Amino acid sequence: MEKLAPLTFIKSNTFDELSKFLKTKNYSSYFILCDENTLAHCLPTLITKCKLLTDAEIIEIESGEENKQLEIVANIWQTLIDFNADKNSLLINLGGGVITDLGGFVASTFKRGIDFINIPTTLLAMADASVGGKNGIDFANIKNVVGTITQPKAIFIYDNFLSTLPQRQYSNGLAEVYKIALIANKKLWQNLSEKREAKIIETSVGLKQKIVAKDVHDKGLRKILNFGHTLGHAIESFLLNTENPLLHGEAVVIGMLLESHIAFQKKMITKEIFIEIETVLCTHFNIEIKEKLGFENLKPIISNDKKNSSNKIRMALITDIGACTFDVEVTEKQIINALNYFEGNATKRN
Amino acid sequence: MEKLAPLTFIKSNTFDELSKFLKTKNYSSYFILCDENTLAHCLPTLITKCKLLTDAEIIEIESGEENKQLEIVANIWQTLIDFNADKNSLLINLGGGVITDLGGFVASTFKRGIDFINIPTTLLAMADASVGGKNGIDFANIKNVVGTITQPKAIFIYDNFLSTLPQRQYSNGLAEVYKIALIANKKLWQNLSEKREAKIIETSVGLKQKIVAKDVHDKGLRKILNFGHTLGHAIESFLLNTENPLLHGEAVVIGMLLESHIAFQKKMITKEIFIEIETVLCTHFNIEIKEKLGFENLKPIISNDKKNSSNKIRMALITDIGACTFDVEVTEKQIINALNYFEGNATKRN
Repeated sequence: MEKLAPLTFIKSNTFDELSKFLKTKNYSSYFILCDENTLAHCLPTLITKCKLLTDAEIIEIESGEENKQLEIVANIWQTLIDFNADKNSLLINLGGGVITDLGGFVASTFKRGIDFINIPTTLLAMADASVGGKNGIDFANIKNVVGTITQPKAIFIYDNFLSTLPQRQYSNGLAEVYKIALIANKKLWQNLSEKREAKIIETSVGLKQKIVAKDVHDKGLRKILNFGHTLGHAIESFLLNTENPLLHGEAVVIGMLLESHIAFQKKMITKEIFIEIETVLCTHFNIEIKEKLGFENLKPIISNDKKNSSNKIRMALITDIGACTFDVEVTEKQIINALNYFEGNATKRN
Repeated sequence: MEKLAPLTFIKSNTFDELSKFLKTKNYSSYFILCDENTLAHCLPTLITKCKLLTDAEIIEIESGEENKQLEIVANIWQTLIDFNADKNSLLINLGGGVITDLGGFVASTFKRGIDFINIPTTLLAMADASVGGKNGIDFANIKNVVGTITQPKAIFIYDNFLSTLPQRQYSNGLAEVYKIALIANKKLWQNLSEKREAKIIETSVGLKQKIVAKDVHDKGLRKILNFGHTLGHAIESFLLNTENPLLHGEAVVIGMLLESHIAFQKKMITKEIFIEIETVLCTHFNIEIKEKLGFENLKPIISNDKKNSSNKIRMALITDIGACTFDVEVTEKQIINALNYFEGNATKRN
């Protein structure tokens, strides 16, 4: 199995785990990438507790998926140049999925690759985005169509940062935890209502690392992590430039619901299982959307999905709660059926 | 040793070597990146001889180092999207170093990495640029400051393409052959005047692959390939936006001369060896430049060189003809002395 980044939970109040790591590495300079939220709520903690970072250069970008784009990447490259970053500099990504995706891409391409570490500050990033080495930016309205797979040197999780998170952002992250449970661990799914945060993050991240380690380059097993994402990504991309964009996790919840319906249509799961999934997701998440979806809007985005080749639509689909398979061919009709089911029920829910 | 791309010399008139490779791979679609020169002089040969490529999409960019930039990369990503490239598509880089550098970067970042192969058409690319997996673009006037190290799936060398090359481009490539000889093989240096092309390319590429294989990620030994390049790159970058830009190899020849002088100043080589190198380079290459160099112009570029960290200037320097060491600290004074020697002699040469 290929080596992944070590994942450390910061439990000491003095961030000793992080300081110890930095001391062994002897970097020439530190750069911290953050957005206005982590600048205000997380950066002060980080640089107060970890003295080595007192003189780090701070690079601030605006928060939000709409900033995960080439122009911002170019600005960050320029800043690194302006502040004499060299091949031995370290980039510290302090933020949610946008920061870790963007920062990972910047670091993996600057001077042909400099070291970076992730300090995720959202549940989404802790449980999912910061782990596994996938990075990227959106381009031509397609999510993550440009990027690399490059592992961070380390990931540090400090779950106190979650207390700074608004509820909507928290739910956003919970979606990926539910996904991991659905594809890989029935017991986690059953225990999710308990909500013991640190434990849930640890289990969820552990499951993800186990899957990624078996298939770092995304040629096989790792594709099960895409459950809910083929349609979730398409919905997220489609709504990105409307007045009512969804957060990634919100789109993924709807994606999981739709793709579970497709698995049910294909008789890969029973009606009972589908109803259980639907009930749990609708209870724990807000799945209302204001725009009408419609297959014709999603189709061009789906056909550009990285997971699809040769004009065939393939998805990762669950075969039970806690079990998943990948590269399942899906017809347009099955997607349309799922969308009709979802939008029909939306009318009922309203 | 890490696995590098297999390097195949196309000797059959029917390009069987390439067709055989493509057949084993089952790509979903082919894209050929070329410039106006390879479009006119090499592409017809390629697609006539290799029938599998008849329907390949052709992506043409303008030739020249000044096009190795982000905007062009973005255009190519867009074209790949427009023509439905997927994760199983293949990008074929047909051209010189600019095409292989640019195409390698595009492929390594598109959908988090698609396969690419290099078909170098210049001596520079055959002997050097297409081999080793380094790719990149120039940014903020700094050469290759953005890029990755990603190996092509294969490299195909068809030395008949060299007959389409103007003399200046040919010399441009010869510079890297002289470099490989200087850093790694005294016998090659002595035989260079024989000019048996195919043999020289094969020896030169073989030496480079051997060095790269021992250090793919450029942490140690591979740095000796940078001999002549710290100052060569700086000169090339500085002249890029003047009326008299130099080709890469032309700048590297001057870089080798300057850095040999520094090695001589540091008593790493004798005066006799330095004079031999100077005589050979001045005999075989046109080393005149119209702009005045000057350390103050080169300094900001050198300090942004990927090879330098913590404001110290380090170079790969030869210790004999055919032997080289790396990470040698060099003072500003030594660079200035070398520049003065070079510019003083330039006056004599004119």
